[in-house]
Amino acid sequence: MSKSRMEAFSDGVIAIIITIMVLELRPPHGIDLAALYPLIPKFLSYALSFIFLGIYWNNHHHLLQAAKHVDGRILWANLHLLFWLSLIPFATAWMGENHIASWPVALYGLVLLLAAIAYFILTRTLIALHGQDSTIATAIGSDFKGKISVVLYAVALPLAFISTLISSAIYVGVAIIWLIPDKRIERKVAA
Amino acid sequence: MSKSRMEAFSDGVIAIIITIMVLELRPPHGIDLAALYPLIPKFLSYALSFIFLGIYWNNHHHLLQAAKHVDGRILWANLHLLFWLSLIPFATAWMGENHIASWPVALYGLVLLLAAIAYFILTRTLIALHGQDSTIATAIGSDFKGKISVVLYAVALPLAFISTLISSAIYVGVAIIWLIPDKRIERKVAA
Amino acid sequence: MSKSRMEAFSDGVIAIIITIMVLELRPPHGIDLAALYPLIPKFLSYALSFIFLGIYWNNHHHLLQAAKHVDGRILWANLHLLFWLSLIPFATAWMGENHIASWPVALYGLVLLLAAIAYFILTRTLIALHGQDSTIATAIGSDFKGKISVVLYAVALPLAFISTLISSAIYVGVAIIWLIPDKRIERKVAA
Amino acid sequence: MSKSRMEAFSDGVIAIIITIMVLELRPPHGIDLAALYPLIPKFLSYALSFIFLGIYWNNHHHLLQAAKHVDGRILWANLHLLFWLSLIPFATAWMGENHIASWPVALYGLVLLLAAIAYFILTRTLIALHGQDSTIATAIGSDFKGKISVVLYAVALPLAFISTLISSAIYVGVAIIWLIPDKRIERKVAA
Repeated sequence: MSKSRMEAFSDGVIAIIITIMVLELRPPHGIDLAALYPLIPKFLSYALSFIFLGIYWNNHHHLLQAAKHVDGRILWANLHLLFWLSLIPFATAWMGENHIASWPVALYGLVLLLAAIAYFILTRTLIALHGQDSTIATAIGSDFKGKISVVLYAVALPLAFISTLISSAIYVGVAIIWLIPDKRIERKVAA
Repeated sequence: MSKSRMEAFSDGVIAIIITIMVLELRPPHGIDLAALYPLIPKFLSYALSFIFLGIYWNNHHHLLQAAKHVDGRILWANLHLLFWLSLIPFATAWMGENHIASWPVALYGLVLLLAAIAYFILTRTLIALHGQDSTIATAIGSDFKGKISVVLYAVALPLAFISTLISSAIYVGVAIIWLIPDKRIERKVAA
Repeated sequence: MSKSRMEAFSDGVIAIIITIMVLELRPPHGIDLAALYPLIPKFLSYALSFIFLGIYWNNHHHLLQAAKHVDGRILWANLHLLFWLSLIPFATAWMGENHIASWPVALYGLVLLLAAIAYFILTRTLIALHGQDSTIATAIGSDFKGKISVVLYAVALPLAFISTLISSAIYVGVAIIWLIPDKRIERKVAA
Repeated sequence: MSKSRMEAFSDGVIAIIITIMVLELRPPHGIDLAALYPLIPKFLSYALSFIFLGIYWNNHHHLLQAAKHVDGRILWANLHLLFWLSLIPFATAWMGENHIASWPVALYGLVLLLAAIAYFILTRTLIALHGQDSTIATAIGSDFKGKISVVLYAVALPLAFISTLISSAIYVGVAIIWLIPDKRIERKVAA
């Protein structure tokens, strides 16, 4: 079974998710700079979610390039990932509208956590199909970033009820881990 | 006539349908967990529709892989299917907003029924073009799942006025039939 | 310059236009059948626009298959067509909300007219690039349907102020002309 | 790393951005021509943004055709561009709703400026990967249009507080520079 349509469909869904989030940024009624102030938390939430979805798209791109073929199980593992990603606009909007309150921040982390788990399942399903010695298994490797992300989300989630600032900082931290080019962090981990 | 653009267009439409449904999940004004409770029926409706659209995309993917070429009639049979699928967000929103009332549940079933019939017409049009001995005719086979789905939707529809719970359970049941890997159920049917 | 990305981009835009129209079908607050009645003109407008966009996609698909290459002028002729198509959801919504009043019906016809002219320009630009003896010039031929559509829209437009029913009937008539398989009407015209 | 998925993803995002802007054109409640008057600034803003996004898509198409391969840095430079482009609907809506007031016009220019800078970074990243003697470096050349656009946006931005008409005229001017076929302006600059 060819992987190209699964790539095209995922591209379509992620492109739409990343774009409809901006619909939450409603133009204010005022016409001066002050009218934009209440939009700042929404804008920051949007930018953060844009980066997270960009990371997922980048990783998905790399992952599928290493894959040779897909089967029905992988199509569903992929749809499972897209399902949690599709909830990011909702979680972003709730967080953005409420100036970073505890429950919205925790829900945001929960959606990120479930997406990270879904991504992990997708990598395992791909390795199961291609074998432990395949290029894709080697490319995924120990998946340090994937595992540490799950741990960090799981930590950030309850912390949202103590300090939403710390939780938000952890989310930003996870994004930074992924934005740093692979080689460097891999060498650090190897050291 | 090449089938690749028809695949790409269908991917685009299904990707958008599956994603805009999430726009119905409006962020609540409250900021605690209780604010999310009224969204539960909407979320469940969304998840069910996501699974149905995922099943359609999966089946469409498999169907088109077995097809060698398409013609004008098939393009229209495909657009006919996409038309009914495009009404799923509307039916989902009506059902989700009304905590599973009779008419919304019946309408949801009707849209699913009409989409299932449109899919059936698409398979027949494809077989008519490729011939009874073609790979695609063999791949579709007796189309047990397709036929039983139509029957189940037709049964669930009037039942919505007696018990929306039974109707909903039947919809979930149809989804489960399609989620079970093909081989197993085919062997069971063959036995 | 390769035509594949122009096809992909057009597919994307048309897929989105065809799908966001359904967002106008807001779920009613009532939960019985009567609650759906006010949506009937919206639904009919949606169905008509879906068919028109389906016709455009079909024709675009056929046209581009006959094309060998594209240049900057064709990219812009194509974007010009997509611009008018992108206004169909707006015209559809205004017509659907106002139970087929004169101005909305006329505006709908105007958008269809401008899209038909843009499509005509696109075919001429393609012929200019490929030459009068090219496959694409032969495939387009006398373009009877294209010309008669422009004439019919131009007639239907002022008629909207006398009878919106006649205008609407002409729009439906144009759609039917395009839905009838090519061969038959071409033979009739040739006779 | 193949560039085709980056092209497909960018096509998807730009197609959605260009299309969701039309959602701002809400159908008016009145049913006569006068009801459309208040929509004129919105329509003009939409048309201008459509053209700008069309220019970006056209340039992106040309740029990627000259590119041979991409890497992680280019994927991010591309996402950075898409981020600023994704804010065009918001800036367009604010400008369109406020009949061309100072701050909205300035914000619109700011988003265009940041998108132009992001595009510039993308071209530099592509040249850095392919080398100074590559086809892409030659194709980009001195990038006169790119540089003059950045300068014009930077000038138009503060001018919005003196005269929104002049700022708007400059935006239209930049669009015209890009719409004029390349050869002519390049020869003028060379002369």
